[in-house]
Amino acid sequence: MQLYSFFNSSTSYRVRIALALKALAFDTVAVNIRVGEHRADAYVDEVNPSAVVPALVDGDVSLGQSIAILDYLDAKYPEPRLVPQDIEARARVLELSMLISCDIHPVNNLRILKYLQGPLGLSAEQKDAWYQHWIAEGMAGVERLLVRHGHGAWCFGDAPTLADVCLIPQIANAQRMGCDMSAYPRAMAVYAHAQTHPAFLAAAPNQQPDYTA
Amino acid sequence: MQLYSFFNSSTSYRVRIALALKALAFDTVAVNIRVGEHRADAYVDEVNPSAVVPALVDGDVSLGQSIAILDYLDAKYPEPRLVPQDIEARARVLELSMLISCDIHPVNNLRILKYLQGPLGLSAEQKDAWYQHWIAEGMAGVERLLVRHGHGAWCFGDAPTLADVCLIPQIANAQRMGCDMSAYPRAMAVYAHAQTHPAFLAAAPNQQPDYTA
Repeated sequence: MQLYSFFNSSTSYRVRIALALKALAFDTVAVNIRVGEHRADAYVDEVNPSAVVPALVDGDVSLGQSIAILDYLDAKYPEPRLVPQDIEARARVLELSMLISCDIHPVNNLRILKYLQGPLGLSAEQKDAWYQHWIAEGMAGVERLLVRHGHGAWCFGDAPTLADVCLIPQIANAQRMGCDMSAYPRAMAVYAHAQTHPAFLAAAPNQQPDYTA
Repeated sequence: MQLYSFFNSSTSYRVRIALALKALAFDTVAVNIRVGEHRADAYVDEVNPSAVVPALVDGDVSLGQSIAILDYLDAKYPEPRLVPQDIEARARVLELSMLISCDIHPVNNLRILKYLQGPLGLSAEQKDAWYQHWIAEGMAGVERLLVRHGHGAWCFGDAPTLADVCLIPQIANAQRMGCDMSAYPRAMAVYAHAQTHPAFLAAAPNQQPDYTA
Protein backbone atom coordinates (compact mmCIF):
# COMPACT_ATOMS: atom_id res chain seq x y z
CA MET A 1 0.00 0.00 0.00
CA GLN A 2 1.27 3.47 -0.87
CA LEU A 3 0.07 6.75 0.59
CA TYR A 4 0.75 9.89 -1.41
CA SER A 5 1.05 12.39 1.41
CA PHE A 6 2.40 15.75 2.51
CA PHE A 7 3.54 15.89 6.12
CA ASN A 8 1.64 19.07 7.01
CA SER A 9 -1.56 18.24 5.09
CA SER A 10 -4.45 17.71 7.52
CA THR A 11 -6.20 15.36 5.12
CA SER A 12 -3.05 13.22 4.71
CA TYR A 13 -2.73 13.23 8.52
CA ARG A 14 -6.29 11.82 8.79
CA VAL A 15 -5.43 8.86 6.58
CA ARG A 16 -2.14 8.26 8.40
CA ILE A 17 -4.05 8.02 11.71
CA ALA A 18 -6.48 5.48 10.24
CA LEU A 19 -3.68 3.37 8.77
CA ALA A 20 -1.91 3.38 12.14
CA LEU A 21 -5.10 2.52 14.07
CA LYS A 22 -5.70 -0.41 11.73
CA ALA A 23 -2.01 -1.42 11.87
CA LEU A 24 -1.75 -1.36 8.08
CA ALA A 25 1.78 -1.06 6.69
CA PHE A 26 2.31 1.49 3.94
CA ASP A 27 5.01 3.36 2.08
CA THR A 28 4.86 7.15 2.06
CA VAL A 29 5.27 8.82 -1.32
CA ALA A 30 5.97 12.44 -0.49
CA VAL A 31 4.09 15.03 -2.58
CA ASN A 32 5.30 18.54 -1.83
CA ILE A 33 2.18 20.63 -2.31
CA ARG A 34 4.10 23.81 -1.42
CA VAL A 35 5.86 23.58 -4.77
CA GLY A 36 2.87 22.18 -6.70
CA GLU A 37 3.90 18.53 -7.06
CA HIS A 38 0.18 17.60 -6.74
CA ARG A 39 -0.39 19.31 -10.11
CA ALA A 40 2.29 17.38 -12.00
CA ASP A 41 0.92 15.50 -15.04
CA ALA A 42 2.23 12.13 -13.83
CA TYR A 43 0.46 12.50 -10.49
CA VAL A 44 -2.84 13.74 -11.94
CA ASP A 45 -2.91 11.28 -14.85
CA GLU A 46 -1.67 8.17 -13.09
CA VAL A 47 -2.50 8.54 -9.40
CA ASN A 48 -5.11 11.14 -8.49
CA PRO A 49 -7.28 12.99 -11.04
CA SER A 50 -8.48 15.24 -8.19
CA ALA A 51 -4.97 16.80 -8.14
CA VAL A 52 -4.81 16.97 -4.35
CA VAL A 53 -3.27 14.96 -1.52
CA PRO A 54 -3.74 12.39 -0.14
CA ALA A 55 -4.14 9.47 -2.51
CA LEU A 56 -4.06 5.81 -1.55
CA VAL A 57 -2.89 3.02 -3.83
CA ASP A 58 -3.99 -0.41 -2.61
CA GLY A 59 -3.33 -3.06 -5.24
CA ASP A 60 -5.37 -2.11 -8.31
CA VAL A 61 -7.28 0.65 -6.53
CA SER A 62 -5.99 4.22 -6.71
CA LEU A 63 -8.23 6.53 -4.70
CA GLY A 64 -8.29 10.20 -3.79
CA GLN A 65 -10.28 12.27 -1.24
CA SER A 66 -9.49 11.53 2.39
CA ILE A 67 -13.07 10.78 3.48
CA ALA A 68 -13.51 8.32 0.59
CA ILE A 69 -10.19 6.71 1.50
CA LEU A 70 -11.19 6.43 5.17
CA ASP A 71 -14.53 4.86 4.23
CA TYR A 72 -12.72 2.42 1.90
CA LEU A 73 -10.25 1.43 4.63
CA ASP A 74 -13.12 0.91 7.08
CA ALA A 75 -14.94 -1.33 4.62
CA LYS A 76 -11.92 -3.36 3.51
CA TYR A 77 -10.02 -3.49 6.81
CA PRO A 78 -12.76 -3.16 9.43
CA GLU A 79 -10.67 -3.77 12.57
CA PRO A 80 -10.99 -1.50 14.45
CA ARG A 81 -14.04 0.14 12.92
CA LEU A 82 -13.91 3.95 12.65
CA VAL A 83 -17.56 4.51 11.74
CA PRO A 84 -20.15 2.71 13.90
CA GLN A 85 -22.76 0.49 12.25
CA ASP A 86 -25.65 1.56 14.47
CA ILE A 87 -27.62 4.08 12.40
CA GLU A 88 -27.85 6.89 14.94
CA ALA A 89 -24.32 6.48 16.33
CA ARG A 90 -23.05 6.51 12.77
CA ALA A 91 -24.99 9.70 12.02
CA ARG A 92 -23.45 11.49 15.02
CA VAL A 93 -19.91 10.50 14.03
CA LEU A 94 -20.46 11.57 10.42
CA GLU A 95 -22.11 14.86 11.42
CA LEU A 96 -19.06 15.97 13.39
CA SER A 97 -16.65 14.59 10.77
CA MET A 98 -18.41 16.50 7.99
CA LEU A 99 -18.56 19.72 9.99
CA ILE A 100 -14.76 19.56 10.13
CA SER A 101 -14.22 18.19 6.60
CA CYS A 102 -16.68 20.45 4.79
CA ASP A 103 -17.15 23.59 6.91
CA ILE A 104 -13.71 24.11 8.51
CA HIS A 105 -10.85 22.49 6.63
CA PRO A 106 -11.56 23.43 2.99
CA VAL A 107 -11.70 27.19 3.53
CA ASN A 108 -8.37 27.26 5.37
CA ASN A 109 -6.17 24.93 3.39
CA LEU A 110 -2.96 25.91 1.65
CA ARG A 111 -4.41 26.66 -1.80
CA ILE A 112 -6.96 29.07 -0.33
CA LEU A 113 -4.41 30.91 1.81
CA LYS A 114 -2.12 31.18 -1.23
CA TYR A 115 -4.94 32.65 -3.34
CA LEU A 116 -5.74 35.23 -0.64
CA GLN A 117 -2.16 36.48 -0.60
CA GLY A 118 -1.45 35.94 -4.31
CA PRO A 119 -4.24 36.93 -6.74
CA LEU A 120 -6.19 38.90 -4.11
CA GLY A 121 -3.10 40.65 -2.75
CA LEU A 122 -4.22 40.52 0.89
CA SER A 123 -1.83 41.10 3.77
CA ALA A 124 -0.53 38.44 6.18
CA GLU A 125 -2.75 40.03 8.85
CA GLN A 126 -5.86 39.69 6.66
CA LYS A 127 -4.96 36.08 5.85
CA ASP A 128 -4.50 35.29 9.56
CA ALA A 129 -7.82 36.98 10.42
CA TRP A 130 -9.51 34.89 7.71
CA TYR A 131 -8.01 31.68 9.14
CA GLN A 132 -8.99 32.52 12.70
CA HIS A 133 -12.51 33.59 11.70
CA TRP A 134 -13.37 30.22 10.15
CA ILE A 135 -11.73 28.28 12.96
CA ALA A 136 -13.82 30.23 15.49
CA GLU A 137 -17.04 29.69 13.48
CA GLY A 138 -16.40 25.99 12.94
CA MET A 139 -14.94 25.06 16.31
CA ALA A 140 -17.90 26.70 18.08
CA GLY A 141 -20.10 24.23 16.19
CA VAL A 142 -17.79 21.32 17.03
CA GLU A 143 -17.89 22.23 20.72
CA ARG A 144 -21.70 22.54 20.72
CA LEU A 145 -22.04 19.11 19.05
CA LEU A 146 -19.64 17.53 21.56
CA VAL A 147 -21.46 19.07 24.52
CA ARG A 148 -24.79 17.86 23.12
CA HIS A 149 -23.84 14.39 21.90
CA GLY A 150 -20.25 13.58 22.89
CA HIS A 151 -19.28 11.13 25.64
CA GLY A 152 -16.23 9.24 26.85
CA ALA A 153 -12.54 10.05 26.43
CA TRP A 154 -12.86 10.42 22.66
CA CYS A 155 -15.48 12.38 20.74
CA PHE A 156 -17.99 9.55 20.92
CA GLY A 157 -17.09 6.90 23.47
CA ASP A 158 -14.03 5.05 24.63
CA ALA A 159 -12.42 4.32 21.27
CA PRO A 160 -11.43 6.68 18.47
CA THR A 161 -13.80 7.11 15.52
CA LEU A 162 -13.73 9.01 12.26
CA ALA A 163 -14.69 12.12 14.25
CA ASP A 164 -11.41 11.97 16.18
CA VAL A 165 -9.51 11.18 12.99
CA CYS A 166 -10.81 14.46 11.55
CA LEU A 167 -10.65 16.55 14.76
CA ILE A 168 -7.06 15.99 15.83
CA PRO A 169 -5.37 17.19 12.60
CA GLN A 170 -7.69 20.21 12.49
CA ILE A 171 -6.76 21.26 16.03
CA ALA A 172 -3.06 20.66 15.35
CA ASN A 173 -3.33 22.90 12.29
CA ALA A 174 -5.17 25.64 14.20
CA GLN A 175 -2.56 25.57 16.97
CA ARG A 176 0.24 25.84 14.41
CA MET A 177 -1.50 28.95 13.03
CA GLY A 178 -1.67 30.50 16.49
CA CYS A 179 -5.42 30.23 17.17
CA ASP A 180 -6.71 30.63 20.72
CA MET A 181 -8.47 27.31 21.43
CA SER A 182 -9.52 28.03 25.03
CA ALA A 183 -13.22 28.36 24.11
CA TYR A 184 -13.40 24.66 23.13
CA PRO A 185 -12.62 22.70 26.32
CA ARG A 186 -14.41 19.50 25.33
CA ALA A 187 -12.61 19.37 21.97
CA MET A 188 -9.27 20.18 23.58
CA ALA A 189 -9.75 17.39 26.16
CA VAL A 190 -10.14 14.94 23.27
CA TYR A 191 -7.04 16.44 21.65
CA ALA A 192 -5.02 15.99 24.86
CA HIS A 193 -6.24 12.40 25.13
CA ALA A 194 -5.15 11.68 21.55
CA GLN A 195 -1.61 12.78 22.41
CA THR A 196 -1.35 9.65 24.59
CA HIS A 197 -2.29 7.26 21.76
CA PRO A 198 0.54 5.71 19.70
CA ALA A 199 -1.40 5.76 16.40
CA PHE A 200 -2.09 9.48 16.67
CA LEU A 201 1.53 10.18 17.63
CA ALA A 202 2.91 8.08 14.76
CA ALA A 203 0.73 9.95 12.26
CA ALA A 204 1.81 13.43 13.36
CA PRO A 205 3.55 15.69 10.84
CA ASN A 206 6.90 15.63 12.66
CA GLN A 207 7.07 11.84 12.42
CA GLN A 208 6.83 11.76 8.60
CA PRO A 209 9.75 11.08 6.26
CA ASP A 210 9.14 14.34 4.36
CA TYR A 211 8.97 16.48 7.52
CA THR A 212 10.92 19.71 7.54
CA ALA A 213 10.97 22.15 10.45
CA MET B 1 -40.07 14.37 8.82
CA GLN B 2 -39.01 18.02 8.65
CA LEU B 3 -36.28 19.47 6.49
CA TYR B 4 -34.84 22.82 7.53
CA SER B 5 -33.88 24.17 4.15
CA PHE B 6 -33.14 27.26 2.09
CA PHE B 7 -34.30 27.08 -1.52
CA ASN B 8 -30.99 28.21 -3.04
CA SER B 9 -28.70 26.23 -0.71
CA SER B 10 -26.87 23.51 -2.65
CA THR B 11 -26.60 21.31 0.42
CA SER B 12 -30.36 21.59 1.10
CA TYR B 13 -30.93 20.77 -2.59
CA ARG B 14 -28.88 17.56 -2.19
CA VAL B 15 -31.10 16.35 0.65
CA ARG B 16 -34.27 17.31 -1.22
CA ILE B 17 -33.14 15.15 -4.17
CA ALA B 18 -32.51 12.17 -1.88
CA LEU B 19 -35.88 12.54 -0.16
CA ALA B 20 -37.60 12.69 -3.57
CA LEU B 21 -35.67 9.67 -4.91
CA LYS B 22 -36.67 7.68 -1.84
CA ALA B 23 -40.26 8.99 -2.02
CA LEU B 24 -40.12 10.17 1.59
CA ALA B 25 -42.70 12.81 2.54
CA PHE B 26 -41.40 15.82 4.46
CA ASP B 27 -42.36 19.30 5.54
CA THR B 28 -40.07 22.14 4.57
CA VAL B 29 -39.14 24.56 7.33
CA ALA B 30 -37.67 27.54 5.53
CA VAL B 31 -34.49 29.01 7.02
CA ASN B 32 -33.50 32.23 5.27
CA ILE B 33 -29.72 32.16 5.44
CA ARG B 34 -29.52 35.51 3.60
CA VAL B 35 -30.80 37.24 6.73
CA GLY B 36 -29.02 34.94 9.21
CA GLU B 37 -31.93 32.79 10.42
CA HIS B 38 -29.48 29.85 10.68
CA ARG B 39 -27.74 31.71 13.52
CA ALA B 40 -30.88 32.27 15.62
CA ASP B 41 -30.57 30.82 19.14
CA ALA B 42 -33.68 28.66 18.78
CA TYR B 43 -32.31 27.03 15.60
CA VAL B 44 -28.79 26.48 16.95
CA ASP B 45 -29.91 25.30 20.40
CA GLU B 46 -32.86 23.15 19.41
CA VAL B 47 -32.29 21.98 15.84
CA ASN B 48 -28.75 22.27 14.50
CA PRO B 49 -25.71 23.11 16.66
CA SER B 50 -23.66 23.40 13.44
CA ALA B 51 -25.63 26.61 12.68
CA VAL B 52 -25.98 25.85 8.96
CA VAL B 53 -28.64 24.43 6.66
CA PRO B 54 -29.87 21.82 6.04
CA ALA B 55 -31.02 19.94 9.11
CA LEU B 56 -33.30 16.92 9.15
CA VAL B 57 -35.66 16.03 11.97
CA ASP B 58 -36.84 12.42 11.79
CA GLY B 59 -38.70 11.44 14.95
CA ASP B 60 -36.23 11.81 17.84
CA VAL B 61 -33.23 12.37 15.57
CA SER B 62 -32.18 15.92 14.69
CA LEU B 63 -29.22 15.89 12.35
CA GLY B 64 -27.10 18.45 10.51
CA GLN B 65 -24.53 18.23 7.70
CA SER B 66 -25.91 17.15 4.34
CA ILE B 67 -23.53 14.23 3.79
CA ALA B 68 -24.33 12.84 7.25
CA ILE B 69 -28.05 13.27 6.51
CA LEU B 70 -27.70 11.50 3.14
CA ASP B 71 -25.81 8.61 4.74
CA TYR B 72 -28.49 8.39 7.46
CA LEU B 73 -31.30 8.33 4.91
CA ASP B 74 -29.50 5.63 2.92
CA ALA B 75 -29.08 3.49 6.04
CA LYS B 76 -32.62 3.96 7.37
CA TYR B 77 -34.53 4.08 4.06
CA PRO B 78 -32.34 2.07 1.69
CA GLU B 79 -34.67 1.98 -1.34
CA PRO B 80 -33.24 3.05 -3.72
CA ARG B 81 -29.69 2.95 -2.41
CA LEU B 82 -27.57 6.05 -3.16
CA VAL B 83 -24.21 4.62 -2.12
CA PRO B 84 -23.32 1.17 -3.51
CA GLN B 85 -22.35 -1.61 -1.13
CA ASP B 86 -19.57 -3.05 -3.31
CA ILE B 87 -16.35 -1.70 -1.79
CA GLU B 88 -14.75 -0.32 -4.95
CA ALA B 89 -17.97 1.04 -6.48
CA ARG B 90 -18.69 2.73 -3.17
CA ALA B 91 -15.22 4.27 -3.12
CA ARG B 92 -15.69 5.76 -6.60
CA VAL B 93 -19.04 7.30 -5.70
CA LEU B 94 -17.67 8.76 -2.47
CA GLU B 95 -14.50 10.07 -4.15
CA LEU B 96 -16.51 12.18 -6.59
CA SER B 97 -19.05 13.19 -3.93
CA MET B 98 -16.28 14.37 -1.60
CA LEU B 99 -14.46 16.26 -4.35
CA ILE B 100 -17.65 18.29 -4.76
CA SER B 101 -18.58 18.47 -1.07
CA CYS B 102 -15.12 19.28 0.29
CA ASP B 103 -13.11 20.87 -2.54
CA ILE B 104 -15.73 22.84 -4.49
CA HIS B 105 -18.84 23.73 -2.51
CA PRO B 106 -17.40 25.01 0.81
CA VAL B 107 -15.16 27.69 -0.69
CA ASN B 108 -17.97 29.19 -2.77
CA ASN B 109 -20.94 29.18 -0.45
CA LEU B 110 -22.83 32.24 0.69
CA ARG B 111 -20.94 32.89 3.95
CA ILE B 112 -17.60 32.89 2.12
CA LEU B 113 -18.79 35.22 -0.64
CA LYS B 114 -20.23 37.55 2.02
CA TYR B 115 -16.91 37.61 3.89
CA LEU B 116 -15.00 38.45 0.69
CA GLN B 117 -17.19 41.47 0.02
CA GLY B 118 -17.76 42.44 3.67
CA PRO B 119 -14.72 42.24 5.98
CA LEU B 120 -12.23 41.93 3.11
CA GLY B 121 -13.84 44.70 1.06
CA LEU B 122 -13.31 43.00 -2.29
CA SER B 123 -15.16 44.08 -5.44
CA ALA B 124 -17.95 42.13 -7.16
CA GLU B 125 -15.44 41.38 -9.95
CA GLN B 126 -12.94 39.90 -7.48
CA LYS B 127 -15.69 37.84 -5.83
CA ASP B 128 -16.83 36.52 -9.23
CA ALA B 129 -13.24 35.68 -10.21
CA TRP B 130 -12.85 33.80 -6.92
CA TYR B 131 -16.04 31.81 -7.59
CA GLN B 132 -15.06 30.96 -11.14
CA HIS B 133 -11.51 30.03 -10.16
CA TRP B 134 -12.61 27.33 -7.71
CA ILE B 135 -15.32 26.04 -10.06
CA ALA B 136 -12.70 25.67 -12.80
CA GLU B 137 -10.23 23.93 -10.46
CA GLY B 138 -12.82 21.59 -9.02
CA MET B 139 -14.85 20.82 -12.13
CA ALA B 140 -11.66 19.91 -14.01
CA GLY B 141 -11.13 17.23 -11.37
CA VAL B 142 -14.76 16.09 -11.60
CA GLU B 143 -14.48 15.76 -15.38
CA ARG B 144 -11.21 13.80 -15.13
CA LEU B 145 -12.76 11.39 -12.61
CA LEU B 146 -15.84 10.90 -14.81
CA VAL B 147 -13.71 10.26 -17.91
CA ARG B 148 -11.60 7.77 -15.97
CA HIS B 149 -14.27 5.96 -13.95
CA GLY B 150 -17.73 7.14 -15.01
CA HIS B 151 -20.18 5.11 -17.09
CA GLY B 152 -23.84 5.09 -18.02
CA ALA B 153 -26.34 7.95 -18.14
CA TRP B 154 -25.54 9.04 -14.58
CA CYS B 155 -22.10 9.54 -13.02
CA PHE B 156 -21.72 5.86 -12.26
CA GLY B 157 -24.20 3.67 -14.07
CA ASP B 158 -27.86 3.69 -14.95
CA ALA B 159 -29.29 4.93 -11.69
CA PRO B 160 -28.50 8.06 -9.69
CA THR B 161 -26.08 7.81 -6.77
CA LEU B 162 -24.75 10.17 -4.13
CA ALA B 163 -22.36 11.50 -6.78
CA ASP B 164 -25.27 12.78 -8.89
CA VAL B 165 -27.00 14.10 -5.77
CA CYS B 166 -23.91 16.26 -5.14
CA LEU B 167 -23.12 17.11 -8.78
CA ILE B 168 -26.45 18.49 -9.97
CA PRO B 169 -26.85 21.24 -7.33
CA GLN B 170 -23.21 22.26 -7.81
CA ILE B 171 -23.66 22.67 -11.57
CA ALA B 172 -26.96 24.53 -11.08
CA ASN B 173 -25.18 26.90 -8.70
CA ALA B 174 -22.27 27.46 -11.11
CA GLN B 175 -24.65 28.19 -13.96
CA ARG B 176 -26.56 30.68 -11.81
CA MET B 177 -23.24 32.43 -11.15
CA GLY B 178 -22.50 32.61 -14.87
CA CYS B 179 -19.66 30.08 -15.14
CA ASP B 180 -18.68 28.71 -18.53
CA MET B 181 -19.23 24.95 -18.20
CA SER B 182 -18.26 23.95 -21.76
CA ALA B 183 -15.00 22.30 -20.64
CA TYR B 184 -16.90 19.59 -18.72
CA PRO B 185 -18.96 17.71 -21.34
CA ARG B 186 -19.26 14.45 -19.39
CA ALA B 187 -20.50 16.27 -16.29
CA MET B 188 -22.89 18.41 -18.34
CA ALA B 189 -24.33 15.30 -20.04
CA VAL B 190 -25.19 13.93 -16.59
CA TYR B 191 -26.70 17.31 -15.69
CA ALA B 192 -28.87 17.28 -18.82
CA HIS B 193 -29.99 13.74 -18.06
CA ALA B 194 -30.98 14.76 -14.52
CA GLN B 195 -33.29 17.43 -15.94
CA THR B 196 -35.49 14.58 -17.22
CA HIS B 197 -35.88 12.94 -13.79
CA PRO B 198 -38.89 13.92 -11.64
CA ALA B 199 -37.01 13.69 -8.32
CA PHE B 200 -34.33 16.10 -9.50
CA LEU B 201 -36.94 18.48 -10.91
CA ALA B 202 -39.03 18.42 -7.71
CA ALA B 203 -35.96 19.24 -5.62
CA ALA B 204 -34.92 22.27 -7.69
CA PRO B 205 -34.81 25.70 -6.00
CA ASN B 206 -37.72 27.11 -8.04
CA GLN B 207 -40.03 24.33 -6.82
CA GLN B 208 -39.56 25.13 -3.11
CA PRO B 209 -42.13 26.91 -0.92
CA ASP B 210 -39.57 29.57 0.10
CA TYR B 211 -38.47 30.30 -3.48
CA THR B 212 -38.20 33.92 -4.51
CA ALA B 213 -37.08 35.05 -7.94
